[in-house]
Amino acid sequence: MMKIDIMTLFPEAVEAVLGSSIIGRGRKAGLLEINTHQIRDYAIDRHGRTDDYPYGGGKGMLMQCEPLYRCHSDIVKGQHIHTVMMSAQGIPFDQGKAKELLAREHIIIVCGHYEGIDRRFIDECVDEEISLGDFVLTGGEIAAMAISDAICRMVPGVLAEDVCFEDESHYNGLLEYPQYTRPEIWHGVRVPEVLLSGHHENIRKWRLKQSLMLTKERRPDMFEKLEMSREEIEKILKE
Amino acid sequence: MMKIDIMTLFPEAVEAVLGSSIIGRGRKAGLLEINTHQIRDYAIDRHGRTDDYPYGGGKGMLMQCEPLYRCHSDIVKGQHIHTVMMSAQGIPFDQGKAKELLAREHIIIVCGHYEGIDRRFIDECVDEEISLGDFVLTGGEIAAMAISDAICRMVPGVLAEDVCFEDESHYNGLLEYPQYTRPEIWHGVRVPEVLLSGHHENIRKWRLKQSLMLTKERRPDMFEKLEMSREEIEKILKE
Repeated sequence: MMKIDIMTLFPEAVEAVLGSSIIGRGRKAGLLEINTHQIRDYAIDRHGRTDDYPYGGGKGMLMQCEPLYRCHSDIVKGQHIHTVMMSAQGIPFDQGKAKELLAREHIIIVCGHYEGIDRRFIDECVDEEISLGDFVLTGGEIAAMAISDAICRMVPGVLAEDVCFEDESHYNGLLEYPQYTRPEIWHGVRVPEVLLSGHHENIRKWRLKQSLMLTKERRPDMFEKLEMSREEIEKILKE
Repeated sequence: MMKIDIMTLFPEAVEAVLGSSIIGRGRKAGLLEINTHQIRDYAIDRHGRTDDYPYGGGKGMLMQCEPLYRCHSDIVKGQHIHTVMMSAQGIPFDQGKAKELLAREHIIIVCGHYEGIDRRFIDECVDEEISLGDFVLTGGEIAAMAISDAICRMVPGVLAEDVCFEDESHYNGLLEYPQYTRPEIWHGVRVPEVLLSGHHENIRKWRLKQSLMLTKERRPDMFEKLEMSREEIEKILKE
């Protein structure tokens, strides 16, 4: 069971994505609990305003501390719950971080918007700032959906039982091999012979070789970190 | 004007996100054209099936070539339009790639689902595979939204005219400085004095120093690549 509370100005958009497909099914099956919280409902201003101008000048608006704090307090109810904020200033997200957050079983994700969030709320309530990558988004919602999806799909039972996520890219440090399905010939191109052979050991070797070639070509950074001896790799690539 | 065609099995989820907030406003203002295409509408099977088992064995299902090809053909109509596929096997996305795709003015994004896509469609129709980062998602939709958002917010007029995206994290290779808004004192913590001083040059220096400190602490990889002399950086950090 994984529980995620998401604080956002756009709960409908988050619901539309995390309510559909595989994650949506996991929620219906009771394997996941995802709640969205509209920050605007906690505004102190009667017009529902949650932003104001930055001190010291500058462009854009900032989210104020108090609505965020009230929303956060309403979720934690005096307990400590690990709180993550999506921000371009954060530590880059990766599969290791996804596993770490999965192990916490309950997290809160704060989605920033406008030009940012008053630093005092972050200092008081946020345990870690996480960045989805080295690019800038209009808000934290898409990033929050991405990390929620990456975490939730690892919860036992969420993926169909015949799907093993540990086979996939980034689990063994290799990119996945090319895959083929019916028909056998499409636009004149035939499925590689070995995949039709039924010879499991040859198929395994072919796939490993393809994975190694692809990783070497596209991700030399990952290729360098492989926990295989250089001799072993050379031998497979030459076969 | 930027035009993006997104091929997906979940057009409603994509629409809910890219139809709201800043990107939604940019579309209504005619600055952006984003179209979603339901791949299932191009199924050759009368039950709308678009997936099948992988040759050579393995877990999960693959998306078949033909529905994808028919959907793609219906968009390109004989022209060449730069086609990107979201995939864990791709090149990692970053702000430089966002700018490159922005310059193309029209792109197609293919969202994979299930365990992957038949390689022959990729070889025939996809120009580049892009990965959102080193983590695995249940499908390409969230990744497609992320890159669409990162690209579209740079289209002139999409962000409010007083917001300059070039000030932000990842534009000058520095993380953004801390920001503060009203009230002046919150939970006993006062906004840094310099931001209330009205002294623009001191504010600029304070912010630059904070950005440098934050980047040094959190992103030594970015700090190493700064285009400033080490003497200049040391001088600012000591002030």
